[in-house]
Amino acid sequence: MKYLNNTPRSEWQILAKRPVIEKRNLDDIVNNIIDKVRIMGDVALREFTLEFDEFNLGELKVSPAEIEKAKSQVSEELKQAISVAYNNIYKFHAFQKVTEIPVETMEGITCWRKNVAIENVGLYIPGGSAPLFSTILMLAIPAQIAGCKNIVLCTPCDQNGTINPAVLYTASFLGINQIYKIGGAQAVAALAYGTESIPKVDKIFGPGNQFVTKAKELVQKNGIAIDLPAGPSEVLVIADKNADAEFIAADLLSQAEHGTDSQVVFTTNYEPLIEQVNLALEKQLSTLPRAGLAKKTLENSFSVLFNSVDECIDFSNVYAPEHLILAIENPTEYCDKILNAGSVFLGNYACESAGDYASGTNHTLPTNGYAKSYSGVSYDSFVKKITFQKITPRGLQNIGATVEIMAQAEQLTAHKNAVSIRLKKINN
Amino acid sequence: MKYLNNTPRSEWQILAKRPVIEKRNLDDIVNNIIDKVRIMGDVALREFTLEFDEFNLGELKVSPAEIEKAKSQVSEELKQAISVAYNNIYKFHAFQKVTEIPVETMEGITCWRKNVAIENVGLYIPGGSAPLFSTILMLAIPAQIAGCKNIVLCTPCDQNGTINPAVLYTASFLGINQIYKIGGAQAVAALAYGTESIPKVDKIFGPGNQFVTKAKELVQKNGIAIDLPAGPSEVLVIADKNADAEFIAADLLSQAEHGTDSQVVFTTNYEPLIEQVNLALEKQLSTLPRAGLAKKTLENSFSVLFNSVDECIDFSNVYAPEHLILAIENPTEYCDKILNAGSVFLGNYACESAGDYASGTNHTLPTNGYAKSYSGVSYDSFVKKITFQKITPRGLQNIGATVEIMAQAEQLTAHKNAVSIRLKKINN
Repeated sequence: MKYLNNTPRSEWQILAKRPVIEKRNLDDIVNNIIDKVRIMGDVALREFTLEFDEFNLGELKVSPAEIEKAKSQVSEELKQAISVAYNNIYKFHAFQKVTEIPVETMEGITCWRKNVAIENVGLYIPGGSAPLFSTILMLAIPAQIAGCKNIVLCTPCDQNGTINPAVLYTASFLGINQIYKIGGAQAVAALAYGTESIPKVDKIFGPGNQFVTKAKELVQKNGIAIDLPAGPSEVLVIADKNADAEFIAADLLSQAEHGTDSQVVFTTNYEPLIEQVNLALEKQLSTLPRAGLAKKTLENSFSVLFNSVDECIDFSNVYAPEHLILAIENPTEYCDKILNAGSVFLGNYACESAGDYASGTNHTLPTNGYAKSYSGVSYDSFVKKITFQKITPRGLQNIGATVEIMAQAEQLTAHKNAVSIRLKKINN
Repeated sequence: MKYLNNTPRSEWQILAKRPVIEKRNLDDIVNNIIDKVRIMGDVALREFTLEFDEFNLGELKVSPAEIEKAKSQVSEELKQAISVAYNNIYKFHAFQKVTEIPVETMEGITCWRKNVAIENVGLYIPGGSAPLFSTILMLAIPAQIAGCKNIVLCTPCDQNGTINPAVLYTASFLGINQIYKIGGAQAVAALAYGTESIPKVDKIFGPGNQFVTKAKELVQKNGIAIDLPAGPSEVLVIADKNADAEFIAADLLSQAEHGTDSQVVFTTNYEPLIEQVNLALEKQLSTLPRAGLAKKTLENSFSVLFNSVDECIDFSNVYAPEHLILAIENPTEYCDKILNAGSVFLGNYACESAGDYASGTNHTLPTNGYAKSYSGVSYDSFVKKITFQKITPRGLQNIGATVEIMAQAEQLTAHKNAVSIRLKKINN
């Protein structure tokens, strides 16, 4: 990690820039995949699966037999862990479901909002080295609390046509039975436009590689909603002398092992910690299976010494981290100063991995500085808030003149007439 | 309006397709404008203003003197109307601001969400024939309730360099003092990337022509959040024999006068209404200044007769209208059946224009079928919901094994270590 000492505020914007990701021009490649899926449907999906996942796929949908087999392959210990995580995630997200009371804005005029589930949602779960069954919990639980009617899951199979048992078990545990062995941009295209086998959805969720995230970006242009814009994962740790260097190093590494495009940032007002954390990083790195990945990430990363915790927080607000750890004394007192972050972990025992898996909060969060304007996934991501209004004749009398005058001033006469014609009838 | 009789369900998806908008390839044109503004800043803004708005702009920012002048040009009657609308909109949106209580998901693990304002927001207000000062109310009021620090407004000036007084008055009434005389794609670019005069914002709101909406789409790809994807305005009316043909015609026309790319749909289970509404449309059309526009819109529009109100609602759910009017008996009883809509108007006296201006609900709503997955603008559009979690040593003991097992199963060893290293210290 690069070490920076009191970087002046004028350079913070530059320091907060994420490492540039190699951006090949994916637009054409991914657009072609999408077009082919739109036109040829399942045939295209099978062709791409053969090409990219190297498996000649017959039935796209995972069969009940495959799910039964997966269930028997998952340890009781893991099943128990998934159940604990489920309960916490459910509890936190169920709490987000609130019924708003109607507001009488004027006598006779009542307005309210109502949460209505997005009917059809698609969840994309990547394959590859790490089987992200935890992401199924993070997406499907709020979808079910919201009441989404159709939850469709796509995930790539391996060269033998199989899907990681933990992924199938988790989906099945949640009662999801529409699981398709399709990955990559072709899966996003199938969810966006539908094929013979895969139903079209209204919104697509989930992480993925650069093809997947490009496909999500492109279908969004055509009106298919997506959860969040994509970016590599990141953590920023703020520590004071109260912090534990071993803990900080462990947190930085848990982020660093995600991939070389991740970034980790360590800020403190206590200079000795910088060296202590570096030593702890070296020690812990040597024991990690993904040490190579993590080491490369650390090369893209930096520590900064500031004069105070407040200054660390000011920098963090410019950086807008996906994950923010406050390893400081009385962290709760600083909550009101946090302006931009995805999820915040307070104190020495709130490690990021607790939130990644099981504490209850969601792990699908805004990266790449998007925390300035985006929220992480929540119950809200799976509903629309529809407004309703009821106006009595008395209500229209109260508001009529206001609408008429404003409509006239905007030169929208028909808008005015819609009120006038009613007032006339009321007054007759 | 085309008249359709009991269109079968199998054809609803096609019927719900919006009229195709002439899509010139705007990408290159708008990309060039954006690039030029990014590189040349204010100079580019002045050049484009000369080219498109035909005014040689000196100072970009509206001066206090211009605002004072505008105040004197707005009638007391209009000022009063704006004040009434302000109160209702404020009341409804303030109600959306809720403080969520922390949830203890397990002993020692507390999670909560906090609404934090998006610091910098940009509002785009179109110029042109109708000065949309009402949109300033709809965007700035929730921004202020949310606590956005910087509210920056861009709107084009006319050939004399002036802005409609009602627009300036409304902005000033709301205390907005960052008003810039810039319109079109160049205004969106300036808000997205900042220039010498115009501050960069984190999220851009507001309607506009095809250049503006294309620019919003393009900057969104670069991580600048936007309010909603764009589409022409629309209304769907569901009426039974309890409805008033004159009222329905007035509502259809108030939507139709927006522009020829708008669409209006009329559905009923009471056949005589079809003809009555057509007659009322003809009668009312003749009195409208914008009759030409409205007439063309009606040519793109249709009435459908269905067997029942329930079937009308089923069709409406497929269509997913921006505005939905239920001109039926006991409309409240049908609310739970509404699955996809932007804003719903209940009963014969809840005309759309009431909600467009002053009842309290927002008029920035999802069009083009986006109501299936998007909500209209609200307080929520101006905040991020940041999650926080506090975990005590006892809490980590409760959840530790769960996280370790799940992390191990996802092959993320460093994630596991971040817990193990802490548990070790707690247990020592």
